[in-house]
Formats: sequence, structure tokens, C-alpha cells
Amino acid sequence: MTAYANLSAHFGRAAALGNAIGILQWDNDVMMPKGAAGTRAESLALLRVMHHGLTTDERIGDWLAEAEVQDGLGPWERANLREIRRLWTVETALPADLVEASSKAISACEMRWRQARAESDFAGLLPFLAEVLTLQREIGRAKGEKLGLSPYDALLNDYEPGGRSATIDALFDDLAAFLPGFTQEALAVQARRPQTPDPEGPFAIEAQRALGLRMMAALGYDFERGRLDVSTHPFCGGADNDVRITTRYDEADFAKALMGVLHETGHALYEQGRPQAYLHQPVGQARGMSLHESQSLLVEMQACRSEEFIAYAAPLMREAFGGSGPAWETDALWRRYTRVEPGFIRVDADEVTYPAHVILRYRLEKALIADAMPLSELPVAWSAGMKELLGVTVPNDRLGCLQDVHWPSGGWGYFPTYTLGAMTAAQIFDAACRAQPEILPGIGRGDFAPLLAWLRTNIHSQGCLLETDDLLTQATGRPLDASVFKAHLQRRYGG
Amino acid sequence: MTAYANLSAHFGRAAALGNAIGILQWDNDVMMPKGAAGTRAESLALLRVMHHGLTTDERIGDWLAEAEVQDGLGPWERANLREIRRLWTVETALPADLVEASSKAISACEMRWRQARAESDFAGLLPFLAEVLTLQREIGRAKGEKLGLSPYDALLNDYEPGGRSATIDALFDDLAAFLPGFTQEALAVQARRPQTPDPEGPFAIEAQRALGLRMMAALGYDFERGRLDVSTHPFCGGADNDVRITTRYDEADFAKALMGVLHETGHALYEQGRPQAYLHQPVGQARGMSLHESQSLLVEMQACRSEEFIAYAAPLMREAFGGSGPAWETDALWRRYTRVEPGFIRVDADEVTYPAHVILRYRLEKALIADAMPLSELPVAWSAGMKELLGVTVPNDRLGCLQDVHWPSGGWGYFPTYTLGAMTAAQIFDAACRAQPEILPGIGRGDFAPLLAWLRTNIHSQGCLLETDDLLTQATGRPLDASVFKAHLQRRYGG
Repeated sequence: MTAYANLSAHFGRAAALGNAIGILQWDNDVMMPKGAAGTRAESLALLRVMHHGLTTDERIGDWLAEAEVQDGLGPWERANLREIRRLWTVETALPADLVEASSKAISACEMRWRQARAESDFAGLLPFLAEVLTLQREIGRAKGEKLGLSPYDALLNDYEPGGRSATIDALFDDLAAFLPGFTQEALAVQARRPQTPDPEGPFAIEAQRALGLRMMAALGYDFERGRLDVSTHPFCGGADNDVRITTRYDEADFAKALMGVLHETGHALYEQGRPQAYLHQPVGQARGMSLHESQSLLVEMQACRSEEFIAYAAPLMREAFGGSGPAWETDALWRRYTRVEPGFIRVDADEVTYPAHVILRYRLEKALIADAMPLSELPVAWSAGMKELLGVTVPNDRLGCLQDVHWPSGGWGYFPTYTLGAMTAAQIFDAACRAQPEILPGIGRGDFAPLLAWLRTNIHSQGCLLETDDLLTQATGRPLDASVFKAHLQRRYGG
Repeated sequence: MTAYANLSAHFGRAAALGNAIGILQWDNDVMMPKGAAGTRAESLALLRVMHHGLTTDERIGDWLAEAEVQDGLGPWERANLREIRRLWTVETALPADLVEASSKAISACEMRWRQARAESDFAGLLPFLAEVLTLQREIGRAKGEKLGLSPYDALLNDYEPGGRSATIDALFDDLAAFLPGFTQEALAVQARRPQTPDPEGPFAIEAQRALGLRMMAALGYDFERGRLDVSTHPFCGGADNDVRITTRYDEADFAKALMGVLHETGHALYEQGRPQAYLHQPVGQARGMSLHESQSLLVEMQACRSEEFIAYAAPLMREAFGGSGPAWETDALWRRYTRVEPGFIRVDADEVTYPAHVILRYRLEKALIADAMPLSELPVAWSAGMKELLGVTVPNDRLGCLQDVHWPSGGWGYFPTYTLGAMTAAQIFDAACRAQPEILPGIGRGDFAPLLAWLRTNIHSQGCLLETDDLLTQATGRPLDASVFKAHLQRRYGG
């Protein structure tokens, strides 16, 4: 076997193990009876150790060195080697005792966080979160040394390979200058419109589920390689060729589940569209979290909150729930799904105010990792940021800096990908609609085939063949900037 | 660490991996979209190879030798060492090329079998089945050499540790002499009774499911450590502390799903009642397939086809399906659930005729493994056996020797455990009712606590502390014989 063949077989095994982990984690979140939690945690921990063992196998370094000078490899194989080296560099960067210390600190902090959030008790969380932060800094330093990156960029790199905070700073500063004023403008526009009532429930869960399945089918989701189920926190997970999404139903508001389903379907379409020939290889994976989020937001925000989509979907909504009257008029439904309302909670935020939540978190976590701000000042800095960016006064830490699990669970460097994703979605959708004028009229008829075909060709099937910037440039003509996203907001919400 | 501690930790890891396999297999059979079959097969194959790697680790032999002379071990630890040696001996008995050849032959044969059964084409299956048989003989020989057993006993030993065909021959000859005459007697008794109609459907699946769940709860099934779902072939599976059962619903006959649920609940109660302190160790597993089947049949046949059970369940059945009239009288329902009817298909057989199906298969597979009969003669021998034992004339091989997947899938030596289980169930239930007179009156009120308490103490919590014969002797006063089973049939079905 050539060195490349060895690597390919080896990482194919790692993928098979990763697929097992994916299904066990899905089951954990969707199906598992609660008495099995301890047993499952043991199984998952063992499989993750085994997976880490595979991706840090001592033969990989030699195979890589040999394969990288091997003749006869095509562009996909070369890109696969690049991704394997990337993975291997990161996986071997950390000493085992740091991994273990971090894992323990995260477990303790996550558990303490549930209580602290419920009691709005930042002081109680502080020592636990400080420990997690200290270890994240060490992890960032260790990875950064290997990668030639700052600690924060090294952490970011795990979620957004090739992402750099210098680039994000510029993008986010641009948005941050635009958003506070624009939010006020959007609110003013909204206030001038006549008020329409909201559809009134209860909305039967079976009818909500049927409507969700119908939309998934229309979008091109492949039910032979996935499922729709229920979980507390909606997600897209599972395995290669087994891309499962979840939602949760609220009998008082069918839009939550439906928009959640559309969002996760966007993620799932990306996963189902990855290149089959490299499905189990690093080069066949999704390009990064920003691009992943761009696919969910492209479906949920760009396509499925458009007037075209509502024109198609409103009759189906009326039919599904037997709705009639002013609340069910197409225009009323569209306004409901595009309502702007500054609030405290990120996950409840609309398209206009969401980026402010993310920019705040990004700025804070960058300062904290750089040790440029004491962790004890987080609540004060949080409130100041919310005031500045969103114009709201945070009443307590439960509705403030304690609301998200990301920091307690060690997800430092993740937050920016949400808004990078939103901007990327706007830029990609805009390019797609220019290249294929049938996309928007198609959506108006419930025909997503032109959109999906364009995404399959230009994004999904590309895997990790290119770096993110190069992929975006190939697909849209230029690297990411904020202009298309701003223009999109202006068009949909502006005066 | 002591050698025992090393072994315990090592087999704890094997159990964690086994639990992962169990859930992935459950998902495969219950939840998986069909497009994921190939991906899942890869994951399961990898995990099984890893599991085999753990249980054949080269350090085990030294650890065992050292631990077996280690001081201070209690009876559970000693029994654990005995079970570990047993496992390790079997797992290391086979050369890798034989395992691989057998696995490939089984895959090919199983696939060919589906077609052969549909087309009643034994000749088409013959070369594939001959290959499986040849390799099973080799496997039996290889294991037998290590264990000092005949090839057939070595195969049997995988399902029924300590089981011997000489013992089974005597038990089955006893039954075979009794059953043909007794079946005619039971049919005559049945014919003399007034005829009652069957309850008529359709029976809504939701109502069937609710009734099943209610019965499971009454039996003491722990829903915090398990679930009830649907699959094509009902089974009990999952993992430690996560004991899941499945059923399938027929809208025309609610008894199929209900009796299936009761059967699988019997298996599940055994699994949920294994000793927590040794749950992940070999000594904490169920004792063997006969005892496992005894627990399902004890619940389904002994407890839940009793007149006491029907007296409790009949009103619930009427309530669940809004049933009334002669078909729903308690006595009519009891007769329906104890109807005797000789037929061709094992899985459809009643309690009286089932053993004949098993005895036939046992005799044939023993002869085939011993090379005492050409495989090509199987259809003729099958028909002759069915005529002799059940008095029926098999019309074709689809309804004859092609009906079961066991032989094509390499499950040689498994069949006898069904009827050993039925006999064991009768003997255990009889001993339980003698020791605890509240059991049957309790069942009449839907109170299974006295029965479950007795089973927990005397069977479930015992794991593999004792060998099967010793456990049965401790629980019932003597090793297995056919007398209690025959007396049970006589009492329920005789004249």
C-alpha cells in the first residue's frame, strides 16, 4: 500500500468510529432513557478515546511525510492530505494531562452552570468558569504554538479552519457600526405598519410534524438517509448517509418548530450533499462551522423568510391548521416571521438583532482569552455591550452572561461562526439568485430544485477541496464582506 | 493494580464497547433509515473487531494465571475469573482466517436464503448452506479441541455454557415420546369444548401500544432503563441499564403484539435485574440462552396465559378496544390464548406443539454437524420428522426447512435453548409458586410484585455466579427434567 492508501484506510476507520459516536450521541439526546446516562457516558468516553488514538497514531506523521511527496495524486487527494495534516497537527498538539484536566473542569463547570443560570448566580459560577478559561488559554497556547497562531485564533481554528480574528474584527466592526442605527430604523418601519393579530393555537403536534415533513421533502431532504425526531435542543447530527435532524414542538406557536426544521434541514442538505467518493475522508467533510451555519441560515432566513416562500407556504399553513381570518393572511404571516424585537436572549433573537448578541460575545471571549479583562468583570461588560449594541438594559445575569452553555462547556471561539454564517448565507444566496434566476420564482411555487442544484454544485459537493475563502470566492466572486448582508437587511427591513 | 483489578478494568472496557454495539444494533433494527445500511455495517464491523481485540488481548492469559492464585477474592470474583477464562478460551480458539471465511459465507448464505425461502428453492440454497455448515463444523472442531468437547457441544456451548447434547438427548427423547400422543389428547379436549368467536378488529395501534405499556408497567419493567418500540422482528436488546424491547402491531389481531410484548418483557426483566455491582463484568451477565428464554416464557406462557392472568387482563382488553359480546368473555379470551393447532411454522406454534419444531431441528443439526447425514437429504428428513412429531405433511420447503434464518446465519447449536427454556420456565414457575403462594393470586389482581421479587432473588440477581445446573438446583431443588413441563401441559391442555 502507498502511504496515501494507508492514510485513506486509516482515516476511513476513524470515520467509521466517528459515525458510531454520532449515532450514540444522537440516541443520547433523542431516545435514551435517563437511567442509561452513566452507562452511555462510559461508552462514549471510551469511543472518543479510541478515536483520538486513531487520529494521533504514531504512523500518521511518517505516512504524511511520504504521501506529500508521492506522485500521481489528484487535487482531491492533495487536499485530503492537507486536511489530514491539519487534523493531526491539532490532535497531537495537546498533552494528555491538559486534555484530561480540561475535560474534568468542563464537566464540573457545566453542571454548576445549570444551577447558576437558574439562580442568576454569576459569583457561584466564577471559580468554575475561571478554571475552564485558564485551561482554554493553555489549550489555545499549545495549539497556537504548533500552528503559529495566537491562542484565540488557535481556538477559533477548531471551528473555522483558516479563520482569523483580524479578519473577523474588520467584518464585525463594520456590522457593529451599522446595526444599532439600522435596528432603530427597522423598528420604526415596523411601527408604521398596521398591526395584525398572531395565529392562535393550539396547533396539533401531528399537524406541525406533517407540515415540517412536507417542507423538508420540498427542500430536497433525502428521507432514505435521515430522520426527523424530537429533542430538547434541536440539532442536526447522526452519521455519514444518516443525517438526522430534530425539533421541538410548541402547541401555542407552530412557527418555532417549523423554522427550526427549516434551519436544521439547511444543515442536513449540506451533510447529505457532501461528495460520496470522499464521504469518510477528511476532505469530504463540511468546510467549517461558518459555512455550515451559512447553509442553515440560507434555508431558514434567506429562502424561507422571503416573501416568495411565504406566498407558497401560507396556504399550506392554513390547510394544516384550518386557519382563516386576518392572522392567516399571507402578508400577516410574512410580517410575523420577519418581526424585529430587541431582547436579552440570543436564541430567541431575530435576523436583525442576532448579530449584536454574537459580536458582544466574540469581543468578550477574545478579551478573556487574551487576559485583557478580568473574568469577574464579565457581567458589567456584558450589560454595557448590550446597552451599546442593542439598546437594552439587562436585568440580571440569567438573562445576561449566564444564558449560553458555550463558555462553561469549553466552546470558546465558536460564537463568531453564527454571524459569519449569516453573512456568508446572504452572500451565497445573492450569488445563487444572480447565477440562476429561477431560484426565487421556484421557491414561490415550492420548487427548491434550482436552489438545491446550485448549492450542490457550488458548495455541498466541494467538501474541503478548497479553503473557506477560496470556496466562497469561487462560488460568489469574492471573499466574505458585510455588504450583501447589510443590503439584505436593508431590503427586507429598511425604510 | 492486581491482576484481578486489571482484568476487571479490561472487561469493563469491553462491556462499554459491547454496550455501544448493542445500541447501534438496536438503532439498526428500529430507527435507521435504509440508505445508512452500508455505513452502519462498517461501523458495527469495526467495533466488533475492536471488541474481539479486547477480549483476545495477549495480556489476559497472564492476568488470568496470576489472578487465579490471587488471595482475598470472594465468590463473585472467583466466578468472574471462571467466566473470563471461559470467554477468553472461546474467543482465542479460532484462527483469524476461519473467522473471516465464516463471516463471508454467512453473509452470502443469508442473502441467498431470503430468495430461496421466497421461491421455496432448497437446491438454490444448498451450495451456500453447505459452505456455512462446513465452516461451522470447523469452528466446532477448533473450539471443541480447546474445550474438550465434540464439535456440536462446542457450538452449543456458545449459547448454553455447560450445556451437553447427551443431557439434551435424554430430555428431548422424554418429551418426544410424550408430545405426539398428548397433542392429539389436547386437540380432542379442545374439540369437545363449545366454540367461541374471536374478537374482531381492527384494533387501533395506539390502543394496542397503551395496553402493552400498561402490562409492562404492571410486570415491573423499569421505563427509566428501557423503551418499547416497533421492529420487523421483535427482540430485546440495547445495553446495560438500557434494556429496550420491540414488538410489531397487527391491526387484525391484538394478541400478537401483546403476547410479544409480554415475552420480551420477560427477557427485559432478567436483563434489568442483573446484579448492579457486576453489571459490566462477565459474571454479571445472564447465565445463558436457556435461562434467558425461560424468563421470557415464564412471563408469556406460565404467568400470562394462566387463567389468573386472563381474569385480570380481560377487562383491560375489553376497555382498551371497546370489546363486548361472546368473543370478549374472559373464558373465550383464555381459550383463544391457549388454542392448540399443529402447523408448519415454528414461530407461529403454540405452547404444546412448539417443542416438536425444536426437537426436529435439534436432531437434524446435530446429525449435520456430525456429518451423519448429507445436507441434500435435509428436506426429506424434515418432512419425515414433521410427520412423526406433529402429524402434519409439509407441502414445500418454504413451509419446511427454509423457514428459519438460524442455519443460514450460522446459528448452529441455538435451537435447543428454546425448548430447554420452556421446560426451565415451567420448573422455575412451579418452584416459585410453591415457595411464594401469593404469586398466582397476585397475578389475578395484576400484582406481579411477588413473582418479580422471587425471580429477582433467585434468578436475575444471580448473574453467572453459578453454573446453569447449580443455579436451577438452588432455585428449584433439582436440575432440569421434563416432568414439570409435562405436568403443566397436562394441567392446562389435558383431559
